[in-house]
Parts: sequence; structure tokens; C-alpha cells
Amino acid sequence: MALTLEQLNTSPPSELLAELGGLYEHSPWFVETALQSRPFASLAHFKHTLVQAVDGAGRESQLALVRAHPELAGKAMVAKTLTAESTNEQGKAGLTACTPDEFARIQQLNADYNARFGFPFILAVRGARGLGLNKAQIIETFERRVYNHPDFELAEALRNIHRIAEIRLNDKFGVEPTLGNDVWDWQEKLSVHSDPGFAEKGQLTVTYLTDAHRACAQRISHWMRDCGFDEVEIDAVGNVVGRYHGATPNAKYLLTGSHYDTVRNGGKYDGRLGIFVPMACVRELHRAGRRLPFGFEVVGFAEEEGQRYKATFLGSGALIGDFKPEWLDQKDADGITMREAMQHAGLCIDDITKLQRDPARYLGFVEVHIEQGPVLNELNLPLGVVTSINGSVRYLCEVIGMASHAGTTPMDRRRDAACAVAELALYMEKRAAQDGDSVATIGQLNVPSGSINVVPGRCTFSLDLRAPTNEQRDALARDVLAELTAICERRGVRHTLEETMRAAAAPSAPALQQRWEAAVRAQGLPVFHMPSGAGHDAMKLHEVMPQAMLFVRGENSGISHNPLESTTSDDMQLCVQAFAHLLDSLAANPL
Amino acid sequence: MALTLEQLNTSPPSELLAELGGLYEHSPWFVETALQSRPFASLAHFKHTLVQAVDGAGRESQLALVRAHPELAGKAMVAKTLTAESTNEQGKAGLTACTPDEFARIQQLNADYNARFGFPFILAVRGARGLGLNKAQIIETFERRVYNHPDFELAEALRNIHRIAEIRLNDKFGVEPTLGNDVWDWQEKLSVHSDPGFAEKGQLTVTYLTDAHRACAQRISHWMRDCGFDEVEIDAVGNVVGRYHGATPNAKYLLTGSHYDTVRNGGKYDGRLGIFVPMACVRELHRAGRRLPFGFEVVGFAEEEGQRYKATFLGSGALIGDFKPEWLDQKDADGITMREAMQHAGLCIDDITKLQRDPARYLGFVEVHIEQGPVLNELNLPLGVVTSINGSVRYLCEVIGMASHAGTTPMDRRRDAACAVAELALYMEKRAAQDGDSVATIGQLNVPSGSINVVPGRCTFSLDLRAPTNEQRDALARDVLAELTAICERRGVRHTLEETMRAAAAPSAPALQQRWEAAVRAQGLPVFHMPSGAGHDAMKLHEVMPQAMLFVRGENSGISHNPLESTTSDDMQLCVQAFAHLLDSLAANPL
Repeated sequence: MALTLEQLNTSPPSELLAELGGLYEHSPWFVETALQSRPFASLAHFKHTLVQAVDGAGRESQLALVRAHPELAGKAMVAKTLTAESTNEQGKAGLTACTPDEFARIQQLNADYNARFGFPFILAVRGARGLGLNKAQIIETFERRVYNHPDFELAEALRNIHRIAEIRLNDKFGVEPTLGNDVWDWQEKLSVHSDPGFAEKGQLTVTYLTDAHRACAQRISHWMRDCGFDEVEIDAVGNVVGRYHGATPNAKYLLTGSHYDTVRNGGKYDGRLGIFVPMACVRELHRAGRRLPFGFEVVGFAEEEGQRYKATFLGSGALIGDFKPEWLDQKDADGITMREAMQHAGLCIDDITKLQRDPARYLGFVEVHIEQGPVLNELNLPLGVVTSINGSVRYLCEVIGMASHAGTTPMDRRRDAACAVAELALYMEKRAAQDGDSVATIGQLNVPSGSINVVPGRCTFSLDLRAPTNEQRDALARDVLAELTAICERRGVRHTLEETMRAAAAPSAPALQQRWEAAVRAQGLPVFHMPSGAGHDAMKLHEVMPQAMLFVRGENSGISHNPLESTTSDDMQLCVQAFAHLLDSLAANPL
Repeated sequence: MALTLEQLNTSPPSELLAELGGLYEHSPWFVETALQSRPFASLAHFKHTLVQAVDGAGRESQLALVRAHPELAGKAMVAKTLTAESTNEQGKAGLTACTPDEFARIQQLNADYNARFGFPFILAVRGARGLGLNKAQIIETFERRVYNHPDFELAEALRNIHRIAEIRLNDKFGVEPTLGNDVWDWQEKLSVHSDPGFAEKGQLTVTYLTDAHRACAQRISHWMRDCGFDEVEIDAVGNVVGRYHGATPNAKYLLTGSHYDTVRNGGKYDGRLGIFVPMACVRELHRAGRRLPFGFEVVGFAEEEGQRYKATFLGSGALIGDFKPEWLDQKDADGITMREAMQHAGLCIDDITKLQRDPARYLGFVEVHIEQGPVLNELNLPLGVVTSINGSVRYLCEVIGMASHAGTTPMDRRRDAACAVAELALYMEKRAAQDGDSVATIGQLNVPSGSINVVPGRCTFSLDLRAPTNEQRDALARDVLAELTAICERRGVRHTLEETMRAAAAPSAPALQQRWEAAVRAQGLPVFHMPSGAGHDAMKLHEVMPQAMLFVRGENSGISHNPLESTTSDDMQLCVQAFAHLLDSLAANPL
């Protein structure tokens, strides 16, 4: 018999402990502590309270918790230390059928890991969807994590323990994140389409108007129809647009969506989550035969990443009348113009201008997106409310010093281009940290044709500077460029500088942001405010209508633009529920 | 009538000023000051005293001197400001026949230069050999120097003024650096041989046993025969060995020489100077019918730079029995083994072991070499006495952090691999400077596949650490690697490290070093001691016999491994004279 939230909130603690004491391996006291905070508004609330109990227990208790877990076993299981739960979990992960090589590799990794960290390797082997990781995934994760910094790895072990507890809790309560699973599965199915050269390697790359890209559009439109959207079309730039009519014919629309193109060798959730979450909401509305007092328009934007052509935000740009005709003449790496690609895809170029939306017809724009950063993951929070999309500015730079012999040029007679950039890099770290929420990055750094025995005469590098407001970004840029000038002057080197991008900050509309806050609170979760460091389609819509975003936690430190990008179907479930709450709230209390 | 040294030392200053007042443009007072230091041991002594007079005059007087020079003129000369000397010099440089484009370019450069520095561009347009630079060389130099740091460019202008004065003085005294000119011309003639792919671009590249390399060996051996060497051979590894017999059959030999291979797109003097300077000495001995009480063996080493194969110091190594047989199986970039290359060149591989010299048969090894560094150039000294060849150690390294989104990863949550290396670079600058004569360089630096919007997850780099003693080098390396470890620990990143080279320091033999000191003093020049930052063939010979080196100033801040490598025939003349002095001194006072 599955537990209920009612029982969790009312049964005697001793009874609950008998049932739930094993959530945290051999450590019932965390559950005991959490139960002191009853009643819980939701299972998510209880899970979060458990996390807080572990967080507050201090390092020694946390280490004891980690050490209470059995070592990841290969073919031979160390039966005496395995609880029923962990036997079940390791079984699901297929580790019982290791080859001798795999077994030896796991044993070696266990030894290396233990030697490095002093505790066993903990992995939530049932994975992000709860179905179990395969051996290759487990071993790859092990190999990656053995190199982590010890403090980070302890936190990562605890995060895995929380995920294990979450799955155990779901089992105890007979709960399945079915909406989240559906969203997860749509993303998985969509990821089979990938551009040539990447598909063969199992990598996900979907760039503007390739065959894979057009297949994605086709699939999304098909699923939208299945979900019960009233109108579905692929528009003149390749956006997939689904409309779920409101209760009255002339009702305004709420606009949402995100992009379905990807970076090269990217992740499965970046962009696409923001299409499928509202799609799941529409399906639930349709299933329930419900109409909202406003229409709901979900757009899968065709292009946001600027990979095939330098036309970032093409899809959302078209909706605000910001499609630049000169883009049509841009050529991709194979010399194919955008015009040719659009004609090849059967898109009607003449209709692009018609895509511009009349803001008066819309309530505003909301977007959900995977965080693409480490903050929610580190705080063990599934959802975060975005306060502003950071403004940014980018430069490509070069410092030109004097190449000279590394052996014969005394330290005080050098014009080392790389050391000048090094000085700037450290300044940028300090200067951005000083703001708290600014970021400054040298992502590209190269001494062209550098030789081991030559003092660098040239150093090329990029600058990427972002802040929640334009003023803060500009002050940051001013200081960084002034420091670059001062460093060059002091070191007797010179520099070149080319601004390649400048994007305005997009603060969230308070009225919409508050709806997200209420939606998060309704899940039993605390509201966490954060800026969006990355640019999003919402930045474009921001130019013509109010917007606000909700972030979903990313696993693996929130890594993004990378195959390791991941989030759980439990988090996706919370996101769908939050989105549904926002819709309900707008229905009950119009803006 | 040419002036004589006798007249310089005895004529009334007023008479001399009438003749020499124009050496420094419109600034007779520098000559006046210098004449207070009479008598002069040599013209070189007088030149050096003039340099000191300018050095001691202070920045305002120096600026006035620079401003007294006419602007570099194109087609139209500004006649009123040109002295007879500068008209003659600018005429020799062929600037009178500018095309309209060239004229416009020079006018633009003059304007840019003046705007940047506030004084006219001064160039010793008669160049390093005194024959005059061509228009392209002048314009290239102009274009390069307009970007110099203002302090450096003032010094560079003064250096050019000293060179102008030197040539004017030679004219006044009817003196030609004929030995230096011959050495200069040999180097120029040898530089016509260059490897395919470089020769076409006018670049000098001579790597081990290419056609160009073998042509060089052939030419050097031919010139050695012309100079009167008694025996000349190309040995089993391709070294060109010339022997000038001593007065008695069983006399010991003094060994000298340097290498004739080059780096890719290298300079004409690196290595080769050390073959041709002693060659000139032998020619003078032979012309005079003189025999020394010792034999003189001059070796053009076939390989020092390690470019085609990883077998640095192959040529000098063979003389100390340090030819490694496994080198024969190394392949070049085209898959040709060293064995095949040697067979193709007709070298007798079986005889390599016979090349090992018996140290008991030698007085020692001396080597002259272009400095390959900025020190002598900056101090306005033609020659420097080497006290030690620095010991060195090299590493190839990588820092592995965590690639993450540049927009979404807060500054305090980053594991930026490049920032870790930046921190190390700045530490290395400080740590090496602390020793005074240590050097530490990150010559290779790269964020592989870096993206403008990704925090660097990896950063590859090289370390090159050198110091005059092994102990000092080891302490430096210890501190640098400890700091790397500490930085990585603090930043939560890790690093890899591969030691690729370790060479012991080679302090000069005091008895031989003193001969160089006396030889420099005999030219009327001050003795300046310096370590050799670069490795040289003398390092290998050092393992079996005493050695000492003499450095010759390099122009253009001593740039080396670069087509801009240069030194004047006047400096080469002083080097030949110093070498002859060392031979005479060893003849008169055996070690």
C-alpha cells in the first residue's frame, strides 16, 4: 500500500520512520529531523525539507551518510552492506552483467575514487528518468567524477543521495512524474534527429533548416496536433506555432515557447523544454475539455543559437518584425545562402514580414528553460524565478607585444602579450565578482603559433561581459577596457578590440514574474530569484511585450551546450505543474 | 684626407669639432663631451664614448637630438633641413625614386609617427652592412616601429642615431670593417639556400640534411678551403670540419664552431656567425703565413635546432659521443627516417662513433654567437662575455577545469582553466624576476576549441624555465610547480605535466672566459658579463672540455629565430678582431 501525503502529515513519526527510515541509507535521523517540519504541502515540499536536514547536519554527518552507502559493485555484490533498496537499484542499472573488463574497470575506479576522496562513489543509478543508466553511462560518469574537486564531489555525492531518496519516496508514495516523463520522452524522441557528421557520432546537432531541423519541426507540429492544439502551422521562417483557442473568439493570447535548434554537439533540453512543457499543459487542458479565458500560443522557434548562419534569434526576431532581409544572402559553411535553404525547405520568404505580432493582442510572453548554469543544482532547488535576462557585450581582441627568445630576454625587458592578457583575466575575475551578479569571461585565448621557447608576441582572446542591467554591464565593460588599456600602457604592448555583439538587458515584467513566484510556492518550494546569464528568445519578445521566465535545475552542475546537459523528469513534472498553475492563476485573476 | 686615431687623440678640439661636429645632427656638444675623455684606444672606444655622452645627457637633450634630425623624406626632400650627410644617406637608400603610392605611404607614416611620439622617425638607412636599405625595408621598418612603446622607440631612435654616427665616423676615418663585411657577406650568400616551402616565400629555413642543408655544407667546406684550412671534410653526421694545423705536428687543438642549420623562417646569423668569424681568422693567419703553437679546428655543426628531428645538438653531440642510435629511427613530418636521410646524403652511419673527440687532444672550446636577446642592444655594447649558459627545464602542461556557460556560471562557481594558468603566468613573472637572472616563460598557451561564451574547461600551455646554475633552475622549477599545484587546489581544477627537456647549466671555464675579457678590452670596449639564456653547442662540449663564449649584439632588440635577426658588419669586425686577439693571447701565453 502506497503512502499518502495525508498519512505523511498525520501518522505517528514512529510509524513513518519504520516506512521511511531507509530513504537515506542507514541514516533515519534525517527523516526524523524533516518530520519535525510537518505538515508538508506536497511531496516536493517534504523532499526539500529532507535536503535541508542533510544540508544543516554539517560535514561530518554528511560524510557518514555518504560512507553508509555501499560501494558501486560490479558482477560481485557485497551483499552484507546492501539494503533491499540499493540491491534493487543496482540491479536496475544492469551492473550485474559486467564483463570481466568492465568489472576490473569498476574495481579500479572504486579504488582510485576511495583513495582520492575517502568515501565510496555514489551514483543515482536509476538516472534522470528513473529507468536506470546503462553500464557505459555509469562508467563514464565514474571516470568523470573521479577528477572532481573533493569539496565539489562531496556535494555531488549528496546530490545523488537526494536523487536516490527522491526515487525511493516516489516508490513509497506510488507517485510517478507522468507529465514530466512525457516531456522527457518527447525530448528524447526529438533528439534522434541530428545533422550529418554528428548523427553518426551519436551527437545532437540541429541547425537551421537542415533535414534534421525540418524533421524536428514536422514532429513537433504532429505532437501539437495530438495534444489538441486548435491550429498548428510551420510558419515562413520555420517556427512551429500551435494555438489553443481561448473561451471567447476575440480573447487575447498568452505567448510562450522556446527554440528547437541546438548548438553543435549540444544537449537535449536547451530550448526544447520550453516547447514541450506548455505542450503538456495544453494536452491536460484539452483532455479536461477546458478553455481558458485567453488563448494560448506555443511557439517552437526555428533558430536561436546562430550556428548555421549568423542570425541569432531569427525565430523569435521574426515575431517582432526584426528579420533582417540581408540575412537571406548569408552563406553557410557550404556556401548555401539562407535564401536557398529557405526555398529548399518550401518556406515562403515573402510572408516573413507577416509574422510580426501585434503586442496589443497578447497578454505577454513567458518562457521556461533549463537553467544552463550551476546555481539551482548547487542549491538543490528544482525551480528558479528569473528576475532579468542579463545584458551582454562581446569583444574579440588581440594584444601585440614583442616576440623574443624565451632564454635570452630578461624578465624586465619583455613585452609578453600573454602575460598582459593574464593580468586582464585576473582583473576581470575580481571586477565581475565585485558586482556579485556580473560575469566576465575570456573564453577564447590563444598565442598564435606559440613556441615553447619564444616569449609570446601576440595573444588573441575574447571578452564576454554580462550584467542584469545595461548600466551595470556598461560600467563593467568600461572598467575592463580601461584596465586593458592601462595594462598595455604599463607593459609597453598594444591591443586591438572589436565589439562583436551587444544585447540589452531584459528585466522581467513584475506582474508576470509574480505569477511564476506564486506557481513555485504552490509546489511547496521556496522562491529563488536569479538573473538569467544566457540570452533567450524572451529577450526578443521583451522588446515588444512584458515577459518573465522560469528556470529548471540542470544536473551535472548545470552544464549546457554539451551532451551532459540533463534534468530529471521529476523536475520537469514540477515545471509542468508550475506552468499549469500560472495558466490557472491568469484565468482566475487576469493581469 | 681621412682622419687618423693619432689625430683624434692629439689635434686641438676645435679642429676636430670642425670635422666631427656633424656626427650627431646639429648637436656638436656630444662630440665635445666625448673628446674630454681622450686618448682613445680605438675608433670603437671613441664610438662608445660618444654613446655614453648621449646616454648621460638626459631625456630632454636626447629628444632635442632626435628632433634635430630631418623627417624621413620620400620623393620630395625637405632640402633646408638636410645636412650634406643626411642628403647623402637618404640618397643611398633610394628614397628619391618613390612611386606616388610609396611617397603617400611615407608621408602618412611620418604623420602617424609624429603624432604618436612627437619626434621624427630616425632610421640608419645605410643599414647593417652600410650599403643602404631598399625602399621596402625602410617602409616595413617604419610600419613596425610606429607601434613601439614610446620609451622604447626613443631608445631605438637613439640607437639609429648612433649607427648613423658610426657610419659617418668610418667615412671620416676612411675605415671599412672589411673582415666584418666578409663575414656578413658569407652569411648573406649562405642564406640563399632554404628548404622548399620557405625558399619560395623568401624565408630562411635549413633543416637537417635537406638539399638546402647539404648545399650549405658544400659551400662552407668550399669557403674553408679558400681560406687556407689544411684539412676540410664533411663528417659522418654532416658537420663541416676545417683544421688549420699548428706549428708542430702533435700540437693540441683549440676547438670552435657553431651550427649552420636554422629554425623555420629564422635569421641569417644564429649559429653561422660562429663558423664564419673563426674562418675569417684562419684566412688572415693563412694570408700572413702564420702558424699558431696549437692547431685550430673550426666546426660547422650540422644540427642544433632540433627542427626536422627531435635530436637537438646532434652535431656537437656527435663530437662527445652522445649520438643516440635510436634517433636513426625517428621520422620527419614526411615519414622519412633519419637513417634514410643520412643514407640519401651519402653519410657513413657506421663512422658516427668515430667522431668522438679525445678531450686530452684539445685546449678547450670557444664559440661566438649572436646574443639572440636585447641586452647588448639596449646597452649599446657590441660584445658581451658569457659567464654561463643557463640550465633549463621545459614542461608541457594542461589545466583541466570545468567548461561551463559564460553567461550562467557565477564568478564564484567557476573552474576556469585559463584563469588558473593566468595566475601561474603572473606568478612566474614575479618569481623569475626575483632571481634577477632567471627567466620563466609560457610560450604556448591555448584554450582548445575555446568559445566566446564558454568558461574555459581546458587550457594547454608550456613552461620554459632557465637559470645560470642547476640549483637556481631547480629552485625556480620547484616553486613554479608548487604554485601550479596550489593554484589548482585553490581553484578546484587539476593539471597534467610532462617534462620534455632538461639541460644542465654550463658555466664558462674561467681561464677561457678571461681570454675573452682581455680580447674585448683590447678593442677599447668595456667588459660586460652576461649569462647565455639560450642553449648553444658549447653546452654539449662543456660536458667534456672547458668552454667559453662571446656574444655579439643583435639589432632590433636582439630578435632571433626571426627574419628580423640582424647585426652590423662593424660589430662582426670587432668580433673577428676579438677572436684573433684570443688566438694571439693563447699563442703568447698558453693556458
